[in-house]
Amino acid sequence: MLDFTYNIPTKIHFGKDALDFVGEEVKKFSDKVLITYGGGSIKKNGVYDKVIKELKDSGVEIFELSGIEPNPRIDSVREGIKIIKENNIGAILAVGGGSTIDASKFMAAGACADFDPWEFISKGKPMSPAIPLLSVLTMAATGSEMDNGGVITNPETKEKLSSGHEDTRPKVSFLNPEITYSVSKFQTACGSSDILSHIFESYFNVDDSMFMLDRIMESLMKTVIKYGPIAMKDPKNYEARANLMWASSWAINDFIANSAKAAWTVHPIEHELSAFYDITHGLGLAILTPRWMEYVLSEKTVHKFYDLGVNVFDIDKNLDKMEVAKKAIEKTKEFFFDTLGLDSNLRKINIDDEYFDKMSKKACGKNGKINGFVELKPEDVKKIYQMCLED
Amino acid sequence: MLDFTYNIPTKIHFGKDALDFVGEEVKKFSDKVLITYGGGSIKKNGVYDKVIKELKDSGVEIFELSGIEPNPRIDSVREGIKIIKENNIGAILAVGGGSTIDASKFMAAGACADFDPWEFISKGKPMSPAIPLLSVLTMAATGSEMDNGGVITNPETKEKLSSGHEDTRPKVSFLNPEITYSVSKFQTACGSSDILSHIFESYFNVDDSMFMLDRIMESLMKTVIKYGPIAMKDPKNYEARANLMWASSWAINDFIANSAKAAWTVHPIEHELSAFYDITHGLGLAILTPRWMEYVLSEKTVHKFYDLGVNVFDIDKNLDKMEVAKKAIEKTKEFFFDTLGLDSNLRKINIDDEYFDKMSKKACGKNGKINGFVELKPEDVKKIYQMCLED
Repeated sequence: MLDFTYNIPTKIHFGKDALDFVGEEVKKFSDKVLITYGGGSIKKNGVYDKVIKELKDSGVEIFELSGIEPNPRIDSVREGIKIIKENNIGAILAVGGGSTIDASKFMAAGACADFDPWEFISKGKPMSPAIPLLSVLTMAATGSEMDNGGVITNPETKEKLSSGHEDTRPKVSFLNPEITYSVSKFQTACGSSDILSHIFESYFNVDDSMFMLDRIMESLMKTVIKYGPIAMKDPKNYEARANLMWASSWAINDFIANSAKAAWTVHPIEHELSAFYDITHGLGLAILTPRWMEYVLSEKTVHKFYDLGVNVFDIDKNLDKMEVAKKAIEKTKEFFFDTLGLDSNLRKINIDDEYFDKMSKKACGKNGKINGFVELKPEDVKKIYQMCLED
Repeated sequence: MLDFTYNIPTKIHFGKDALDFVGEEVKKFSDKVLITYGGGSIKKNGVYDKVIKELKDSGVEIFELSGIEPNPRIDSVREGIKIIKENNIGAILAVGGGSTIDASKFMAAGACADFDPWEFISKGKPMSPAIPLLSVLTMAATGSEMDNGGVITNPETKEKLSSGHEDTRPKVSFLNPEITYSVSKFQTACGSSDILSHIFESYFNVDDSMFMLDRIMESLMKTVIKYGPIAMKDPKNYEARANLMWASSWAINDFIANSAKAAWTVHPIEHELSAFYDITHGLGLAILTPRWMEYVLSEKTVHKFYDLGVNVFDIDKNLDKMEVAKKAIEKTKEFFFDTLGLDSNLRKINIDDEYFDKMSKKACGKNGKINGFVELKPEDVKKIYQMCLED
C-alpha cells in the first residue's frame, strides 16, 4: 500500500435547491464571472435563466462564452482566456457536462499564463496558478465537477489529451439531479458507461490491500448498474438521477484511487478513438472495456475479475475462479450493449482499422507503453482495437 | 431525499511517512502551536519525538498541554485556552485519539471566545470562530480527525455532551497506521466497536433513497468486521491497521450521513453511561447496540435489518425477512462479544440500574425524546438500559 495525500476540498451543493447558492458562492470569489456553456440546452431547461438570475441578484457582473463542443477544442479555451484577460474576470462558472467543465479548467489556468494553453499539453506546463472555477453540472458522467483534471482536443494534430492540477479542481459545484431529467436516453447510457469505466480504471489495479476502497468501488458500480437503466426508462426518476449524479463525482474525484499504483488503461485507448472520430467518450469506453478485459484476463489477474463477478454481478462464489471471471466479463458486455443499448462494435459506428497503427502508438504515449493493471504496448493496444471490430 | 451540502475540506496525509508533513503543514497556519496529548503513550512509541522534531525543523514555537483524559473534561479545555490566550498561539496540533482531538476542538473555539467554554454546551453558543486545528491520529475510533464535532464531559454536572462547527473540523490530519500498532487489544476492540456504531447510526435511517450511500456504509462495516479481529490478533498488521484507520474517518466525516434525516440514537444513550460511569465509549456502544436493535425491530423496520443481514453478514437472502433480521442482530452480538471479546452486559462492568431513570431522561435531552430511526422516549431508553443488564 502506497502512502497518499487525500485533498478534495470541493464543496458540493446537492439537491433540488442547489442552484439557489450560485450567486453567493460565486460572489465569494469574484465580482465578475465568465459563464461557459455548450450548445444551448441550458436555455431550454431553465438552467440558464436560473443561473443568470442568481448571479444578478448577488450583484455579479456576467460574461459569457457559449458553444463549447463535446470533446472540447483548444480554440474554445483560447477564446475563453481572451475574454477573461480583456475583462479582468476573477472566476469561471462552467454550466454543463464534462466537456464544458474540462475546457473551463484549461481557461482557469490559461487566464494566469502568458503562453498558449496548448502548451499545458504539448510542453507539459503546470496548470497552476488558476483563477477559481465553479460548476453547475448538467450531466452525470465525467466527474469533472469534483476532480482536478480535464481532457482537451486539438483537431489540427488529432490529439485528445489530459492534464490537471489541484488549482483547477472546482471550488464549488452545484448538483441538482432534476437538471439531468432532460438528458437523452443515449447520453444517459453514455454517462453511465463513463462512470462505470472510471471505477474500473481504479478497481483493476495492482494493489489489493485497500479492501475498504475495493468494496466501496463495488458499491459505486452497483449504483450505476441499478440506476442507469432506470434513468433511461424513467428520465424524471429523482432517486435514479440523484444516485447517478453523486456516483459520477465519487467515481473519479481521487478518493477511490488513493493508494492505487497503476495508470489508467482504457481511457487513453479511448481518447484516440474520440480524437480520430469525434465519437462520444462513454460509447467508446463501452466498446473497448470488455475487449480490454478479455485481453488482460489471465491466471495472474483472475482474482480481480472473480471479485467483480461475485461482489457486483452476484455470480455464484463457489464456481471455478476463471469461470466466474468470464461470466463477469459477459455480464459487463450485457450491461453495456443490452441494458444500456449501446453499439457493440466499432463497425456499427463506421470505424474501421485505417488508423489503428497510429492510434495504438499514440495511446502508449512517449514511453511507448501503458503501465496499467497489465502493461500494454502498441501491438497489444492494436489487438484490442481489432477485437472491437466484431461482436 | 433531502438536499445537502457536502463540505469536507480536511486534508489527510496517510501512510508510513505521514508525519513528515507535520512541520510544513502547521507552519502554514501559525508560527506558534499548542500540542495537546493524553497520558504519555506518545512518548513511548516515538510519536512525540517525531512531532517535536518536525515542528522544530520548520521553526515553529511549541507549547504543550498533556494529561487530556479519556472522556475529556471541560477543565482540560479551560487549561488549553489559558495557554493559547496567554501566549497568543495561532494553531493547535492534537496528538492522540478522539478524546484529545475532541477536547482540542473546544479549545480551538474557546481561544476565540470571551466566555467559559462550557457555554458552548450549556448555552449552545456556536463554536465559531476557531483557531486552526490539526491532528496526528494515534487510534482508529472516533473519527474526530475528519469530522467537525466533539464530545466533552463536565464531571460536576455528570454531563457528557457534544457540539461542533465547521470551523473546528481539522484542517489537516496525519494518519500513520503504524502508530496504532501499540494500541492494546482492548482498545482496538473498543475502537472497532465505535467505528461500527458510527456507521450504524447513519445506516439505520428513515431515508432509503441514497442506495449508493447504503452500499458504501455496508462496505465500511465489512471493513471493520474483517480487520478489527486481525488487528487484535496481529497488532502490527499494516493492512488491517490502515483499513481500520481510513474507515474510522469515513464512518463519521459526514459523507455517509449526507441526506439522512434521523438523529443519532445509540450515541446519546451511551454518553450517559460514560458520563455516569466513565467507561470506554466503544464498550458502552457494543453493549447497547444489539439491545437497541432488538428493541426497534418491527415489521416497519425489518427491511433495514434484512439488508444488514444479507449484505454485511452474508445471510441467505431467500430466508424470511424477519428471520434474516434476527440473525443479523445475533451476528452483531457475536461480533461485539465473541469476536471482539467485549463484555456483553452492564453487570460485568459493575453497572446496575441505580441511575437508569436519570440517565434515560438526560439521554432524551430537552425535547424529551430522541427523534431517531425509531422515536424513543425516556421509558423506551430505560427499557433498553434494562435489557443490557443480562445476556
